[in-house]
Amino acid sequence: MRIGVEHLTALSRGCAVLGTGGGGEVDTSTLIARQALDDYGPVTLVTLDDLPDDGLIMPVGMIGAPSVSIEKLSSGNEIDILRTAVEEITGQPVVALMVGEIGGGNGLLPVAWAAKTGLPLLDADGMGRAFPQVDMVSMNVVGLPPQLIVMADERENVVSIRAQDGVWAELIARSISDVFGGSAAMADYVMTVATARGAIVEGSVTLALRIGRAVLDAVEPIDGLLEAVDGVNLIEGKVVDVLRRTAGGFVRGSVSIEGYGRDAGRLVRIEVQNENLVLTEDGRVLASVPDLITVVDSQTADAIATELVRYGQRVCVIAFACNPIWRSERGLQIAGPRAFGYDFDFVPVEELHGIGI
Amino acid sequence: MRIGVEHLTALSRGCAVLGTGGGGEVDTSTLIARQALDDYGPVTLVTLDDLPDDGLIMPVGMIGAPSVSIEKLSSGNEIDILRTAVEEITGQPVVALMVGEIGGGNGLLPVAWAAKTGLPLLDADGMGRAFPQVDMVSMNVVGLPPQLIVMADERENVVSIRAQDGVWAELIARSISDVFGGSAAMADYVMTVATARGAIVEGSVTLALRIGRAVLDAVEPIDGLLEAVDGVNLIEGKVVDVLRRTAGGFVRGSVSIEGYGRDAGRLVRIEVQNENLVLTEDGRVLASVPDLITVVDSQTADAIATELVRYGQRVCVIAFACNPIWRSERGLQIAGPRAFGYDFDFVPVEELHGIGI
Repeated sequence: MRIGVEHLTALSRGCAVLGTGGGGEVDTSTLIARQALDDYGPVTLVTLDDLPDDGLIMPVGMIGAPSVSIEKLSSGNEIDILRTAVEEITGQPVVALMVGEIGGGNGLLPVAWAAKTGLPLLDADGMGRAFPQVDMVSMNVVGLPPQLIVMADERENVVSIRAQDGVWAELIARSISDVFGGSAAMADYVMTVATARGAIVEGSVTLALRIGRAVLDAVEPIDGLLEAVDGVNLIEGKVVDVLRRTAGGFVRGSVSIEGYGRDAGRLVRIEVQNENLVLTEDGRVLASVPDLITVVDSQTADAIATELVRYGQRVCVIAFACNPIWRSERGLQIAGPRAFGYDFDFVPVEELHGIGI
Repeated sequence: MRIGVEHLTALSRGCAVLGTGGGGEVDTSTLIARQALDDYGPVTLVTLDDLPDDGLIMPVGMIGAPSVSIEKLSSGNEIDILRTAVEEITGQPVVALMVGEIGGGNGLLPVAWAAKTGLPLLDADGMGRAFPQVDMVSMNVVGLPPQLIVMADERENVVSIRAQDGVWAELIARSISDVFGGSAAMADYVMTVATARGAIVEGSVTLALRIGRAVLDAVEPIDGLLEAVDGVNLIEGKVVDVLRRTAGGFVRGSVSIEGYGRDAGRLVRIEVQNENLVLTEDGRVLASVPDLITVVDSQTADAIATELVRYGQRVCVIAFACNPIWRSERGLQIAGPRAFGYDFDFVPVEELHGIGI
């Protein structure tokens, strides 16, 4: 298929839902994608089977604190700088871009970048959601080393990294994103089509489109959303407290929500590191990474990014199952609750709430 | 000429003097150089005229906080990793190593690395001393951009940088050295022989050897040293206070020295950022960057690295003129007192103390 301007509203809504608060807010990225599609025409969405086995795939996105990205805009040339660097270093042409993380604005920017470069976009990503760290990708779950990461900023500083493992990749890349002012454009886990087989989350772009369309088409947006993601609505309430600070290259904090209506008297808290990590009520875990926790407007089901959550918003908190790779032993090691410093084991959201998946 | 084990004692003494406290203590690096010369044989010292105009020169050294380097040793393979990365990125073979900074251990490690790689060593460096920052090199003074910097650690993480200018190079490289644990091996300002003409400080290795020999041959080491560098002995005294902390990738602090003998009753203070930056007495500046301030043992004239200065040492503080490039307008902009945050203009040490140069 081809992605044109007509798909952006649905894609934007879907990416926001899969962002679980992170990946950057979608409005700016949607505008950037709209401009690029206007200027360069629609983007061809491809699958691995459409590409040559030895062709080079370049997963791309922004790294950093979303609270920074919202103010520190790109120059628009980062993608060309990244592509040139990757092609110079590998001596191979890039045959397709891939979405690094489908969640949030990071699901939309690769559409803009594919339009600008004229490269096809692979219908896949490395997470099936958004996660805050470079090591939290499916390529790392299956054991691929981060052979090549390239980062660029709007001043055209360029850094390329060959890290010993995902954890070192995260440490090095985070520090550079910090030096660049808190955010940077990044190509990470550059790999061939053959290597990508079984190592990426396929169908992510069409999944985001499908979720977005379901919400837009539904008479009751929340119901449409819950059905599309097979999710559970864990509370309807008002945001009564937001703690947010930008430190160490991340946004960290928490959001407290007081229930109303059927949920009157309840108080839940979401812990945030770029993304919504854990939802608790009276110390009990209602949902946690790697499952998805998304705060949405209680009327429109528009997902709200962590950097845009504010006091007084009327919201629902929905949770739904992550891609199965994250529930594997290594998936949980990399992005389960303990990977974020929490002292409890992951329990799937459908077990916690008796919903079917 | 060829540098063999027999030159190491003099080279080590000379590098320590030119280090002005920084560039890393020389004892570990001397041992590393001794081992490499034993294993691989002597190193050929060359000048620019011995090399082809389009040949690639790789200036090398360690970056970071000397207080870290003294405990966090290299694997010994960093030089091969750096060379491979440089040759892969540029597509050109390296024809010679160059000393990045002649001061301290950084003046000796390139000897070990030249022995290990079998490459000749250029009789030159980028400073004629040691300075704490990546941008404080002669190549930056003459306006060369930092086209290529490569950094590696003992775990074989590799990062390459194309920075917009020297200041960005410093910011990015410092942050990576911090992530690597506080020190890293680095090739910076990789350039061709043709580019290097007029952009480097030639004769630095033989200068260090000459200073070292003069001290070793003198009946009175302090006198031999002062004569060799045309320096002035600004105080003889006892170290009475040392403040030292490792932060932001640097060692920062100060050293207080109380005079004795002819200097009884005097108290001077040295401000340190890896190197000795400024020497003051009662608020009056006795010497400052870019001129060289070196603390030496009052009997042996052995220069003492900032990370090894300690209470009770009997020392002389000597000062002498820097290479003329640093006294140019741009040289002072890059490494004069104001570049380090001091609110005073540079005055040459020979003007301050009426000595001839």
